[in-house]
Amino acid sequence: MRKLPQSDLPELAREIRHYIVDTLASHPGHLASSLGTVELTLALHYVFNTPYDKIVWDVGHQSYSHKILTGRRNQFPTIRTFGGLSGFPRMDESPYDAFGTGHSSTSISAALGMATAAKLQGDSKSHFIAVIGDGSMTGGEAFEALNNAGVSKANILVILNDNGISIDKAVGGLSHHLVRITASSKYNDLKEKVWHKTGGDNRSTGIQNFYRKTLRSLKSSLMEESNLFDSLGFRYFGPIDGHDTEMLVDILTKLKRIKGPKLLHIITKKGKGLQAAERNPVTYHAPGKFNAETGERVKGSQAAQPLKYQEVFGHTIIELAKQNAKIVGITPAMPTGCSLNMMMAQMPDRAFDVGIAEQHAVTFAAGLAAQGMTPFCNIYSSFMQRAYDQVIHDVALQRLHVVFCLDRAGLVGDDGPTHHGAFDIASFRAIPNLTICAPMDDHELRHMMYTAQLDGKGATVIRYPRGLSVHVDWKCPMHELPVGKGRCLREGGDIAFVTIGHVGNDAMTAAERLADEGIAVGVYDMRYVKPLDTSLLDEVATRYRHIITVEDGCLEGGFGSAVLEYLQERQVAHPTMPLPSVVRLGIPDKFITHGPVPQLHKLCGFDVDTMVETARTLR
Amino acid sequence: MRKLPQSDLPELAREIRHYIVDTLASHPGHLASSLGTVELTLALHYVFNTPYDKIVWDVGHQSYSHKILTGRRNQFPTIRTFGGLSGFPRMDESPYDAFGTGHSSTSISAALGMATAAKLQGDSKSHFIAVIGDGSMTGGEAFEALNNAGVSKANILVILNDNGISIDKAVGGLSHHLVRITASSKYNDLKEKVWHKTGGDNRSTGIQNFYRKTLRSLKSSLMEESNLFDSLGFRYFGPIDGHDTEMLVDILTKLKRIKGPKLLHIITKKGKGLQAAERNPVTYHAPGKFNAETGERVKGSQAAQPLKYQEVFGHTIIELAKQNAKIVGITPAMPTGCSLNMMMAQMPDRAFDVGIAEQHAVTFAAGLAAQGMTPFCNIYSSFMQRAYDQVIHDVALQRLHVVFCLDRAGLVGDDGPTHHGAFDIASFRAIPNLTICAPMDDHELRHMMYTAQLDGKGATVIRYPRGLSVHVDWKCPMHELPVGKGRCLREGGDIAFVTIGHVGNDAMTAAERLADEGIAVGVYDMRYVKPLDTSLLDEVATRYRHIITVEDGCLEGGFGSAVLEYLQERQVAHPTMPLPSVVRLGIPDKFITHGPVPQLHKLCGFDVDTMVETARTLR
Repeated sequence: MRKLPQSDLPELAREIRHYIVDTLASHPGHLASSLGTVELTLALHYVFNTPYDKIVWDVGHQSYSHKILTGRRNQFPTIRTFGGLSGFPRMDESPYDAFGTGHSSTSISAALGMATAAKLQGDSKSHFIAVIGDGSMTGGEAFEALNNAGVSKANILVILNDNGISIDKAVGGLSHHLVRITASSKYNDLKEKVWHKTGGDNRSTGIQNFYRKTLRSLKSSLMEESNLFDSLGFRYFGPIDGHDTEMLVDILTKLKRIKGPKLLHIITKKGKGLQAAERNPVTYHAPGKFNAETGERVKGSQAAQPLKYQEVFGHTIIELAKQNAKIVGITPAMPTGCSLNMMMAQMPDRAFDVGIAEQHAVTFAAGLAAQGMTPFCNIYSSFMQRAYDQVIHDVALQRLHVVFCLDRAGLVGDDGPTHHGAFDIASFRAIPNLTICAPMDDHELRHMMYTAQLDGKGATVIRYPRGLSVHVDWKCPMHELPVGKGRCLREGGDIAFVTIGHVGNDAMTAAERLADEGIAVGVYDMRYVKPLDTSLLDEVATRYRHIITVEDGCLEGGFGSAVLEYLQERQVAHPTMPLPSVVRLGIPDKFITHGPVPQLHKLCGFDVDTMVETARTLR
Repeated sequence: MRKLPQSDLPELAREIRHYIVDTLASHPGHLASSLGTVELTLALHYVFNTPYDKIVWDVGHQSYSHKILTGRRNQFPTIRTFGGLSGFPRMDESPYDAFGTGHSSTSISAALGMATAAKLQGDSKSHFIAVIGDGSMTGGEAFEALNNAGVSKANILVILNDNGISIDKAVGGLSHHLVRITASSKYNDLKEKVWHKTGGDNRSTGIQNFYRKTLRSLKSSLMEESNLFDSLGFRYFGPIDGHDTEMLVDILTKLKRIKGPKLLHIITKKGKGLQAAERNPVTYHAPGKFNAETGERVKGSQAAQPLKYQEVFGHTIIELAKQNAKIVGITPAMPTGCSLNMMMAQMPDRAFDVGIAEQHAVTFAAGLAAQGMTPFCNIYSSFMQRAYDQVIHDVALQRLHVVFCLDRAGLVGDDGPTHHGAFDIASFRAIPNLTICAPMDDHELRHMMYTAQLDGKGATVIRYPRGLSVHVDWKCPMHELPVGKGRCLREGGDIAFVTIGHVGNDAMTAAERLADEGIAVGVYDMRYVKPLDTSLLDEVATRYRHIITVEDGCLEGGFGSAVLEYLQERQVAHPTMPLPSVVRLGIPDKFITHGPVPQLHKLCGFDVDTMVETARTLR
């Protein structure tokens, strides 16, 4: 590609864009972000000597053209399928994937680490580039990295890909700041002129200094607002049109020769090249299947089916908030994904999108609770890993009444290991003063939400998976659940499934199949991981010889281990009581790849078949 | 206090400062930070209607004069003692402690949450103030909060307490930025003049607008650098002298009447009023006992005693780095506390203080490792809660060779619940691809550090406690340990202690005492939490009827649970094998108060006495 004349790049961009649209029309993936970065990707690979120069793609769902350009064109239709390409960069997929991503705001830290390593290794030639969106730039880690890099003298180039959108609309002071910078075009015109007048990139140090000084005086007289990146020690360039390949190649070539930390601000259009996606980049972030010509999305079956857990959350929080004036909703940049957008539309004063900022979201919730409100803070399980400290330090320690809804808990499917919500039960179970529960279906979710918001209930975590719940008729009347109490769904012979959350449905299916074979197996939905229903466990331990625990979470220290802990304590206290054997099913001690959820459950060994097989073996 | 004439405040400040110095001379605490904020504290309580107006003290170790002024003067000598006042603000200690702190960078989020709640509750009178140091401002969460607050229109006042010091010297672009702002005094002079010319605080909205416009034009012509806080949507005021009570009262009174998010930048001297502390604020951050007149620190006994684990780390990383050019050291703002300052002095190119920025520290380490370096990333266990996601997502998932040294793991003593390192074993054990170990003494720490840096060892966590290790002669030759292998320290009859880390020494003491009573108890130091030495556990399970696990970590999902998990798996696979009973000793499921470490171990039930008693009961 680097051998092509530069003038061929726009045509290549068109081809790649066409290929992406064509492929994703029938193989769902992250569409809009990738369409926005085609020209940037071409320009980067054209100017820089990848894979020796390193590009770190923040979040990474904008890296599809990068994958296509770096030897994975033929495999591209396998993207996000089991055994196929990952939807994110992965170091083990290609040497061109310099650093794996998935969660936001890590790219500057990683690029700075790489640049620092190169310096120590005496490599002064390699370039290190972080490509980060304006949404990701609001994540605290990005700021920590800017703060560190700004004084480091490291040769890193941060490309701020500004499209005014993260997954939903970008929010916050930074976003306003970027709009203001972009609006002050006079500044940019002049900047270009000064650049050329002083000889473009063929400048001696003296002229460089002159350039810098001139620029500063220009900026101070022309920019209405100050520039955040300058203030942290970066040299700021831009904003420029991120779809103008020629300008990109030109400026990147110049920036290659400038030492120290630099930031290039480019303006792109998310969804570029597909009108429907340009008009509605939130919907077309990951649109599912669609018509490659018109962009029209392929509708699923119109048969009545259960709502997603996400939608049940979205409707239910509004219902509760109408009854309870203390309730507010908080999401860190995922209003559409978690369905808080419904409340934001209906009750804009009481629902907050705080930006990609999980840590802040949790402490902000704690502040609200300290003043007597009852915030529902909805964060995806794997993103909540970012705010583990705040849940401990700001909420649980102070016994504040915050309700955490951990969306996408358990295996999430196509997004793979960065996005699986595997660790929340194990890590949160260790935190004192926390109630942790998981609904088996939409009705249970509603009861748990209702219960958690009642006065005096304290900090509560409700975890539920991505995707469809159980009942078509989801809108049941809500009632209070006894906290820390499970329930018997089905009695059995000498084997019982003891489950938490949605997988209880699979355990019921397994029990039915086993019943057909003449094996009576009990099913107990514990509802609460913490406090654990020890009297129900006493009953189970007395009645059954074998317990099979099932959870959509990691086995190390998870729900099954909580059961083990209690049974062992009981046995020490009452050595003559019977002690059942316990088999724990869940996510094993490895990172789980991407693929369809049922297939991943099978891979991990907590699908219906494995449950049936496990019960058979124990018999 | 609010009834005093304003002119009495400087005298009151002198008295309080004297009282703090006098008390801390014999009752060790955080000295220098609190001396720096005496005038600010007075001015805040004088101007604002606390406790209805809320002050959130970031980190909180600067809140001593606040405690003295708000009804806790007589209890002040009990600070940080068991049953006495906490060294940090705590909501359950006083209504004046609006929000508990301990970890950095949470105050703006909390104050924004409170202000948002007040607005929803129709309270337009209350004020919400976050007092945050320039060090804490580098933490990502503070930026996330600024970004959110800047567009919120919330009536919050952020007071940036700028002393150029966090606990060690402040680092990074922000710190440089603050120096530049402060240096541009011309701007400030003019700002004052404009303020007065436009009528000070008696201004109509029209005049306010004029003031704002004038100020902006002044700034753009006079400030050399742009201002980060302005760019995020805050109204910036300052910098002013934070020890000038009159000016503080004056400007705070004016700021009370200005709506929206505001930031007041004050310059203070950490250690103000005690010369020794002013000269050396890092040492006097928490100096231990000292002479109240001269500031001279009281030296401990000169008898030869073991080094602290921290010092052994500091010496050993240098030794290893001399042999292995891949090794670099990283600390997020704790070089003195963790002893990386030694390496920073001897090998400045290879040791990095990245600021209060745990998330960045971990991904930065991952970036270094991705380029072939072997970073030792030293983070206190409780602060590592901030980077849980980065350890999973950037290091473990990519199998990068980063060595995490988790300093202050387990109960830390006087700093209390925010600082206890209780959750690392439980939360980290869930992460695949991670090796986790804990040394029983200084020699073991050295062997574990040596082993972890060898090629191919992958991501490793070494956790060790705060304080003295075991041997006076700590500098042993280092050798490779077999990863995932424990050791038998002492054989016994039918009871065995199975331990991890430093508490193994206590288990040995307990075993000796039990032996004196004629009870032979085995002691097994497992060394590795992960991978667990299952063949050693097979041996233990075969030989002993009772196992007592001991760990300085939380019991839910901790080391003892890992032992349970394995024994249960073994029992399911081999139902006829003997299954010992297991009693787990460690930190129970509650937040543990502050106090001397031995007392806390007793409180939790894993001190020598409780070990002895537990073994007696089982017999």
